[in-house]
Amino acid sequence: MISTTDIIRGIGEGSTRAIAKALSRVENGSPDSTTILDKLFSRQQGFSIGITGPPGAGKSTLVNRMITRYRSSDNTVGVIAVDPSSPFTGGALLGDRIRMQSHATDPKVFIRSMGSRGHLGGLSGATRDASVILSAAGFSPVLIETVGVGQAEVEVAELADITLLVLVPGLGDDVQSMKAGIMEIGDIIVLNKADRNGIDQLESYVRASLEFMPPHQRKPEVVRTSAVTGGGLEDLWNAINGLVSEQTVKDRKSRSAVKTLDGILKENGIVFSKKLLELEYNGRKAAEELILAGRLSPYAIGKQLLKRAERIFEDHGSK
Amino acid sequence: MISTTDIIRGIGEGSTRAIAKALSRVENGSPDSTTILDKLFSRQQGFSIGITGPPGAGKSTLVNRMITRYRSSDNTVGVIAVDPSSPFTGGALLGDRIRMQSHATDPKVFIRSMGSRGHLGGLSGATRDASVILSAAGFSPVLIETVGVGQAEVEVAELADITLLVLVPGLGDDVQSMKAGIMEIGDIIVLNKADRNGIDQLESYVRASLEFMPPHQRKPEVVRTSAVTGGGLEDLWNAINGLVSEQTVKDRKSRSAVKTLDGILKENGIVFSKKLLELEYNGRKAAEELILAGRLSPYAIGKQLLKRAERIFEDHGSK
Repeated sequence: MISTTDIIRGIGEGSTRAIAKALSRVENGSPDSTTILDKLFSRQQGFSIGITGPPGAGKSTLVNRMITRYRSSDNTVGVIAVDPSSPFTGGALLGDRIRMQSHATDPKVFIRSMGSRGHLGGLSGATRDASVILSAAGFSPVLIETVGVGQAEVEVAELADITLLVLVPGLGDDVQSMKAGIMEIGDIIVLNKADRNGIDQLESYVRASLEFMPPHQRKPEVVRTSAVTGGGLEDLWNAINGLVSEQTVKDRKSRSAVKTLDGILKENGIVFSKKLLELEYNGRKAAEELILAGRLSPYAIGKQLLKRAERIFEDHGSK
Repeated sequence: MISTTDIIRGIGEGSTRAIAKALSRVENGSPDSTTILDKLFSRQQGFSIGITGPPGAGKSTLVNRMITRYRSSDNTVGVIAVDPSSPFTGGALLGDRIRMQSHATDPKVFIRSMGSRGHLGGLSGATRDASVILSAAGFSPVLIETVGVGQAEVEVAELADITLLVLVPGLGDDVQSMKAGIMEIGDIIVLNKADRNGIDQLESYVRASLEFMPPHQRKPEVVRTSAVTGGGLEDLWNAINGLVSEQTVKDRKSRSAVKTLDGILKENGIVFSKKLLELEYNGRKAAEELILAGRLSPYAIGKQLLKRAERIFEDHGSK
């Protein structure tokens, strides 16, 4: 078995095997994953780009274009394809993004699908950690593609240094259902499938929505693309490069470090709660039985655990 | 100020004022919210329906139809419209669903928009608690409408007794991007805008996807509707009534009680982490500064807090 030290060294040397090992240890919550991530955190290089948007917006095609483009300027490119696991089967069913397959044999492109299984921090925790590993291994950019656009996807995309929100015409009259709040997550709003009818209407709507943003806040750039034909992609590169070369990326890195702390605190919290359940109820199973028998509500159990924790902290403080 | 006891009693009597007070106390994480929720938990009646699906699927129109229908058979109807807050402004920007406004003056319809602000458990925590309050106040069904379909929206919709996944034709060739994993969340898959081109293709695709579900698992019903014209809605009622009258709802209530415990444990965990940050680093601010100065990674801080917690638990156990 490859040692923790070898993994960390191997990642510094760009070893694919070390990267793959680190990713699976982290994904499975292996005991040495914190050590690995702690060592790699300060070695991160380059920048990451989150790509989010509703199903059918053409995100995978766009990501594929981005891979080709960054490879042509000799960047190594990491791709994290974020796949919500099936809540019933537990499997990551959204595995292969067909259109990325053309890059699968290029050793300077590293593509990984992430499910939420195993990782205490769920999907966003797993993605966050994978991005640290790929950035420390020297991949830049790391492209993080989400499926769909929801609260969790926004969380994931916001961990990246630059976030693209990909929209398309054709959601009919209901385009308004993607309100200003969602639009604010993009540093760049990509209006994809720009050859479709309705693109002008979509752009007017987007620009009108952005008018409602607070004045002190940076307004996202709006760029039209056609990922399929390649149209408008130069505008997108220019927009991205503009952000990379200025303060935005640096600010984002600080914000993301703080968000990483948030995530880790949540994961720790799960560990503490488990310990308290053992102390108070002989474990989770017994607590569940009390709930199912209608003897205690989940709220009552939560309250009891907090009381116990307070007592434990007081004991500790008084010594 | 209305007392906790008065709020709990008021909800039993269906007082709108008491319900509104309970909702805002819970949303703001007021100290008596756990007491309120504990008392109400066992008083829940009826059933709840989660409605999820991509933006533009016509969820609001469908919800409006459902309100009208349930009102015509003299049910009182609760509606929780789940609005992801703007990550920048903190505001719940997706507030008013215009089409529900026609019910706004009906005292037997209670409509509430939920943002994630204030509640430790975020959007799904806030929605879960609101649903407990409305169910205990006698509203049945409680309709929970999400915006978009992502990991968090699935979590929210799954807290409901019955989940509708609303899909529409017109996502083009990319309909495949809504993979089987997402479809499994629905007890009923509603193919809305059934008068549109592409509905047959959508249905074939959905049915083909369902073939991949594990055989022991209940397959969702597939129902075509046109929320705008009202077509197909009788089929939807029949499908819902079928689920209400059988074991499904009872099983779901048990599952949801256990999921509620999960959510509360996470929220407790945040409280524990905060306490530990105070003990170890004099609070969160100081820990953040260590991170931003590059002196410690968030992972190192997390590890240190876990160590401290272990020591505290050991101390406590050895007494």
